[in-house]
This record gives sequence, structure tokens and C-alpha cells, in this order.
Amino acid sequence: MTDSWGNSPEVPPANGVDLHLVPQGPGGVRARLMRALRDAIGSGRLTPGTRLPPHRTLAADLGISRNTVADAYAELVAEGWLTARQGSGTHVAPRPEPLEANQARAPLRPAPRRPVHDLMPTSPDASAFPRTAWLASARRAVAAAPHDAFGVGDPRGRIELRHALAAYLARSRGVRTSPERIVVCSGFAHGLRLLCSLLDGTVAVEAYGLEFHRSIVTGAGLRTLPLTVDARGARTDELTAARAGAVLLTPAHQFPTGGPLHPERRAAVVRWAGSTGGLVVEDDYDGEFRYDREPVGAVQGLDPERVVHLGSVSKSLSPAVRLGWMVLPGRLVDEVLGAKGPREMWSGAVEQLTLADFIACGSYDRHLRRMRQVYRRRRGQLAPTRARRAPHVRVSGVAAGLHAVLELPPGTEQAALRAARRQGLALDGLASYRHPDSTMAVRDGLVVGYGTPPEHAFAGALEALCTALPDAPAAY
Amino acid sequence: MTDSWGNSPEVPPANGVDLHLVPQGPGGVRARLMRALRDAIGSGRLTPGTRLPPHRTLAADLGISRNTVADAYAELVAEGWLTARQGSGTHVAPRPEPLEANQARAPLRPAPRRPVHDLMPTSPDASAFPRTAWLASARRAVAAAPHDAFGVGDPRGRIELRHALAAYLARSRGVRTSPERIVVCSGFAHGLRLLCSLLDGTVAVEAYGLEFHRSIVTGAGLRTLPLTVDARGARTDELTAARAGAVLLTPAHQFPTGGPLHPERRAAVVRWAGSTGGLVVEDDYDGEFRYDREPVGAVQGLDPERVVHLGSVSKSLSPAVRLGWMVLPGRLVDEVLGAKGPREMWSGAVEQLTLADFIACGSYDRHLRRMRQVYRRRRGQLAPTRARRAPHVRVSGVAAGLHAVLELPPGTEQAALRAARRQGLALDGLASYRHPDSTMAVRDGLVVGYGTPPEHAFAGALEALCTALPDAPAAY
Repeated sequence: MTDSWGNSPEVPPANGVDLHLVPQGPGGVRARLMRALRDAIGSGRLTPGTRLPPHRTLAADLGISRNTVADAYAELVAEGWLTARQGSGTHVAPRPEPLEANQARAPLRPAPRRPVHDLMPTSPDASAFPRTAWLASARRAVAAAPHDAFGVGDPRGRIELRHALAAYLARSRGVRTSPERIVVCSGFAHGLRLLCSLLDGTVAVEAYGLEFHRSIVTGAGLRTLPLTVDARGARTDELTAARAGAVLLTPAHQFPTGGPLHPERRAAVVRWAGSTGGLVVEDDYDGEFRYDREPVGAVQGLDPERVVHLGSVSKSLSPAVRLGWMVLPGRLVDEVLGAKGPREMWSGAVEQLTLADFIACGSYDRHLRRMRQVYRRRRGQLAPTRARRAPHVRVSGVAAGLHAVLELPPGTEQAALRAARRQGLALDGLASYRHPDSTMAVRDGLVVGYGTPPEHAFAGALEALCTALPDAPAAY
Repeated sequence: MTDSWGNSPEVPPANGVDLHLVPQGPGGVRARLMRALRDAIGSGRLTPGTRLPPHRTLAADLGISRNTVADAYAELVAEGWLTARQGSGTHVAPRPEPLEANQARAPLRPAPRRPVHDLMPTSPDASAFPRTAWLASARRAVAAAPHDAFGVGDPRGRIELRHALAAYLARSRGVRTSPERIVVCSGFAHGLRLLCSLLDGTVAVEAYGLEFHRSIVTGAGLRTLPLTVDARGARTDELTAARAGAVLLTPAHQFPTGGPLHPERRAAVVRWAGSTGGLVVEDDYDGEFRYDREPVGAVQGLDPERVVHLGSVSKSLSPAVRLGWMVLPGRLVDEVLGAKGPREMWSGAVEQLTLADFIACGSYDRHLRRMRQVYRRRRGQLAPTRARRAPHVRVSGVAAGLHAVLELPPGTEQAALRAARRQGLALDGLASYRHPDSTMAVRDGLVVGYGTPPEHAFAGALEALCTALPDAPAAY
């Protein structure tokens, strides 16, 4: 075939060019010819300036029609791969370098090495995703959806989902709201980002919490100010001196130290908001998972005009379903929508409608009941395993959520983390959750997520964890 | 029942309080009692300071166990609704105002009035969403997904989708890439926002384009500089003097004026990028929809190291499926991932896997073929209707995409828009797409989207449009 390529003295001969037309490739003959020519040029086999064979020659070589070749050349001229000038034939256009093979192939950022046991506290058991029930909801939701569900979306979120959420949050979390005050978002972080864009000044946060959440606050040009955390949760009395415009709290289950906010402090933070005009932002990240009693209801119920309630399905269902909700005071709805923009850019309609059906038909409650049993059992295993293997280490926090804190003797956290990593465990110590400006006494501890490992691997993860715990110090 | 409420001299009598326990409500008796109490307190029927009846009295009144009442009181104390002090019984806690009925009920932002005919150029026909094929893909995708698909997501996007996109974009758009160079995003705007966070200085844009896109650029602290648009697309020669670090183009079909970028300019912009180190950002928003010939391939294929190719399913499938893609030069992959963050926060795994299957099984190609026929027919109707009703108005731009421009006599655009609005038409004139700093001659025209109306309504929309067009001016 190469002998049909033009071989004039001005252009280098196109030796070694082998123009395969994949017989079964997608598209017609023209599309396949174009692909073959693009490949040959892109890979450098056909160099800039090379003259292509005349239409009739290439057509005869490949056993295709002359018009097909003419059309393919014309397309590639339009795309800039070839140049054509009256009387001088068709040439490969001046081109930049080809895509280097190693650039195209190698992942530029190596995937992180997977730990043997993932005990990070932020995810539920991915293997427990209710695939069948979710698909059943998707089927019903897509069948029932009005046509406009597939058009440009309302930035408030689908009304079906906001109705389902208002009813669900009222009965399960004591939230007082209506669908008009709910704005759907892609998760807690998205909601926090939207809120922060409306605030200025200082946001009080818990002295222990996710650095990622603090970075969202500071990324919006705000300052964070840490509130001491004790056995009753965040010290809300520190708000008086804080001169903060808002406070971000995890009232149901302080993250990561593990206590619920004491009733007096719940009342106090609402009083603070009422008297200063401040805003309480309630991160209800695992409010459904309480194992020893009914979950404590949301602070939002105490004052819907002062508390923003943020939740998502990241812990209750899956972090791969990117849906969260903002339950807003009336005066903030328009402001949040202004920050979100005039069309829905983030949350897909099918996913929203599927979750609405999943909640309304009871599948969400069934899934939560099942997962409460799973996580209650896991948390129950933590204490005896620890007691047998490391009796001097205390499990702190209430029986709730997807994580617990193993309190360590002072000064032993870093060594325990190193030992844990040697055991193939992925987890963090309390130090990595601590606000850098906090003046409260340092606590040593490991934050152990028991949600992520699949069922069969959990016992092994626990054993590995206990192996990593420090020996009892002589004076402890 | 009211007579069981405590009636001590210190607290007001709780007259008129009627504590209904919904017999069939969700949850157990305790949950229903708690809900009834929260409702009574939240609505103001039980005022702060009111003493609640003793456990045994209320239990007898309601015919439920004393422990249930005790538990419900304890929960509501923990939530902050009630206060309990040794020896003085249980009281309603000091509370802020109840949620006002009108605040809870009324939508705070009235939904925009729907036009009779939506001719905005940004959406496909929502009624044509391929529900059955999409659900079939969802079923296969969810069944085949590995467990980790339901865990924390890779911010690059699901590998299955990136594989499907690399193959699809190569054969349909001439894009040269590999799955490692694709980053999934929630749509064009998300991709542009991520890119802009890496740039500084000036981004050249087309003098006619979406104001929303320019606002993303300026929102990132960058300046925009308009390039004149003529019949061959954007004047790439103006880049030399522009001192821009990047240029944002719509090469397949200039938005909204409607021409493809000329081959010489495609080559020129790539040369500019190569010689200055600049970045070409290709907005391939409707590259699949060309009706008179094969679509012109992507500029990205000319230089994968200098061109970022951005696309989404917003026009090809539905703006309610929030999925887009960034095809990146190798050196930018890590930078974009750095801007996106360490976990997937935006795109749901089920939707990604569904789209991957939808592309791989041929459903996407089938849908595009079907929609090309629909839109080709609509565009075909535009010219004769216009010729019959408004022969002096020209339809400009190539036969492609979801919109056309009706060129109007100078000075008549605003009047035509007012007339269109009286006809219940939603559409914009060229003026609203024009860069405020552009010095090019003003063009009058209506940007007519023919994608959005459902099939049955399209003829009526066209007639209404022609009624709104200006009469032929004497001297035109």
C-alpha cells in the first residue's frame, strides 16, 4: 500500500505507513478512513508536509470509492489535519508533536496504595449498598417523572425530594420545616460552601473536627475560632466572647470525640443565636445511627429561624450518592439560591427522584434499621476486643455513628499511629482533627471508623488495631 | 385529656392542649408521643414554663405505658424541648417563637412564570429523554458495579466512564486521549471553574458568547478579552496582541452566531498556544449535532498538549444528567485534581456507571441519531416558515446544534424581542450574548433555540416567532 503514497522530491517519502481500515470498527468507511489517517498523523507515522496519494490511487489501494476518499480528505482539511491547495494536492498540515506514548499511558498521579484495613471514620460499608431496592426506586421514579424532570433543573432541587425530606426529617430527626425551605445540594461540603458565601467575619467551630470543613470556612475568606470540647460537647458559653456570626456544631454526636451536645448547651446556643442574630449550623452527619437509645433530635427543631440543618446520605446510604440537603430559616432561602445560581448545576434529577421514592416507600428506613444492627454489632465488638488485648485503653463517646475514639495514654498517639500503619491500618489520631489555635488540653487517641470494612474483614481489622495499641505504661 | 395537665399556681394552665397520638403514624408509640409534644410546643399550643402532667397521669389518659411517657419526656429533655428538675416536675423549656405559618407555607421566591414557547438555545427536548434505555443501562451498571463503587469516589471519575468516553470521543470527535487524561465533572461550567482556578491574567473569549461563562472566568479573578467573531469564527489573529494565557472557543459551532472555526484559524490557535505556552479551551457543547455533513472533529486532536476539550451530556442527552468531562493535557491532570479535591464530591457513581454502559452498549449513538433527525427536521422548518412569513429576515449559521440566529435589520432587535415576549416566547437577542468590551460592529438578531419545545408544540412556536419578526423596512 505504501507505494500509492506520493513521492515527489519536495516531500519525504511516506515509507512504512500502513493504513489499516479496521473492518469492524464503528462508523462507516469514511469514518474509519479518517480515524486511520488521524492515527497515522497523530502518532507521527505521517509527518508534516507529506503529500497524500491522489483520491483515485488510495481508493483503488483500499478498495473503496473515490468519493469516500475525497470526503475524508475534505473533513480532515476542515479539522486542520491536512491542507489542500489547488494544483498541489493534499498534504499533512504542519503539526505539533505527537502525544507521547508514555504520557498517554501512564497514570500521572499514582493511585494511593490501599491499606489492608480502612478504619477512616468517614464512610459506611460500601458492600451494604441496597442495590436492588435502589434500582426499584429508580425504575418507579423514572417511569413516573414528568417530562420537565429531564429539562433544566430547579436549583432548589426536585419538589418530590423536598417533600419526602421534609416528612422524613420531621419524624426521624424532629426537624420543623417545609419543602419550600429545603435546598438540595451535593453533600454537606457543598451546603457549607454555599452558606459560607453568605457570611463574613468569624465562624466558631468545635476545637476537634474535620480540617476539611475548617478549610471550606477559611477558603470563603472567613476566620474560624475553636470552642473547647468536653464531655458535654462544645462549650457554648465561649460563644459570648467569641464575636462570631455563626457556629458550626455536630450536636447529635460530636465529631470525632463522640458525645452529644448537652441539653443546656443546646438551649444556650439557640439563645445565643436569638440574642446576637447569629446563625447555628448543625452538621447532622450521622444522626440516624444511635445504638443505645433513640437518637437525640435535631437542634433545628428548637429554632427553625436560627438553625440551618445540614444532612446528606453520605453516611446513611453511600458517599457515592451525591445528595445532601440544607434546611433553612425562611430569610436565607433566597440568599442560598442566589449563591447556588439560577439552574441546577450539581444534582441529577434521576438520582433526586430515586431518593425521593426510596424514602417515601420505606426503603430508606429499612436500610437504616439493617445498618444500625450491623454497626451496633461492630461497635459492640470493639469494647471486648480492646478489653482483652489492651485493657488500659478506654473507648470514649456514646454508642452511635460510624466511629469511636480509643483514648490513649498521654504522648503515645504518634507511636500508636506508626504501629497502626505497620499493621496496614488506615486511621488518624485525634491530633489531625484538632484546631491549630485551640488552647484546650491535648488529648491522645485514635479515631477508629468501624463502618468501612466489609463484614468479613471486620474482626481481622480489630485484631490488627489491638496489636497496634501501646502497652500499658508503668505509671498509667 | 386537658385535665391531666398540671395546674399548679406557678405555671399557666395548659388549656386547649389536645395531644393527639396519630394511631397509624410511623414509628412506635414513644415516637408518636414525642412528635405530638414537639408539635404542641413548636406551634405554641404548649407555652414555655408549662408544667407537663406526671408520667402516670398522661399514661393513663392516653392508654399507654408509664415507661413510654417517661422515655418520651427524657428524650425531649435531651433535645432541649423540656426541662426537668428534681422535685419540680417536667416543664416546657424557654423557647423562641414558633415557625410562623406563612413562613412555613409560602414559597419565598415565586417560581418564574413559564413562557408559552421556550426558545432559549440551551436545552434539548426534555420529552425525548430515553427513559427505557437509560434504565436498562442503570440496571446493568448497578448489577455489575464492584462494591467499592459505593464507597468514596475517585475524583478523576469512574474508570469505566473514562474508558467509554476516551473511545467515544476518539471515534466521534477525533479527540486523542486516554482514560488517565480525562477528569469527570458535573458539566461544562464545573470544568471551566476548575480550569480557571489554575490560571491567572487574561482569558480571551469570543465577542459573542454566554455571559454566564464570562462570569465564571471573572469570578475566578481573571480578566476576559473579546475576540471579534466573523463568518470564519473567532479572529484568532487578535490573540497575538491580546497577551492572554488562555482562549475559550466554540470551534465546532460558534455560540451563538453559528459558524464553525475556519481550518486556518484552527491551525493558527494551536500555533499560538505552542509558541506562547497558552492554553486553548474547547467548548464542544453541541459537536454531535451537525445536519448537513459529518461534524467537524475537535481542535483537541490537533494538539492534545495544548488544548483542553470540555464536553457534557447537557445538550446531547439532558441537562438533568449532571455529567461532563475534561480531556486534559498530561501536565494539567494533577493540577485539576488538586483543584477538585481528594474525593469525588459532585458526580454520583450510579449515574457515571449508567452513562458508561449507555455509551458502550450503543444507546448513546442511537439516541444521538434519533435526535439529529428531530433537530434537523426542526431546523429545516425554520427556513421555509421564515421565508413565507418574513422573507427579509435571514437565518444565519450552519445547519447544526440546537439553535439558529435570525438576522434582523439594524436597530430592530429590541422591538422584535418585545413583540416576541407578547407572543409568549422566551428567547434572547444577540445583544445579551455580546461582550461588553467588544468593539466589533453590532449585529441585530434573535437567537432561536429549537431544541426545547416538545414535538407537538414546535410548529406553533415557529408561527408565534414569525408573528414577532419586524416588518420589512422600506430601505432594507
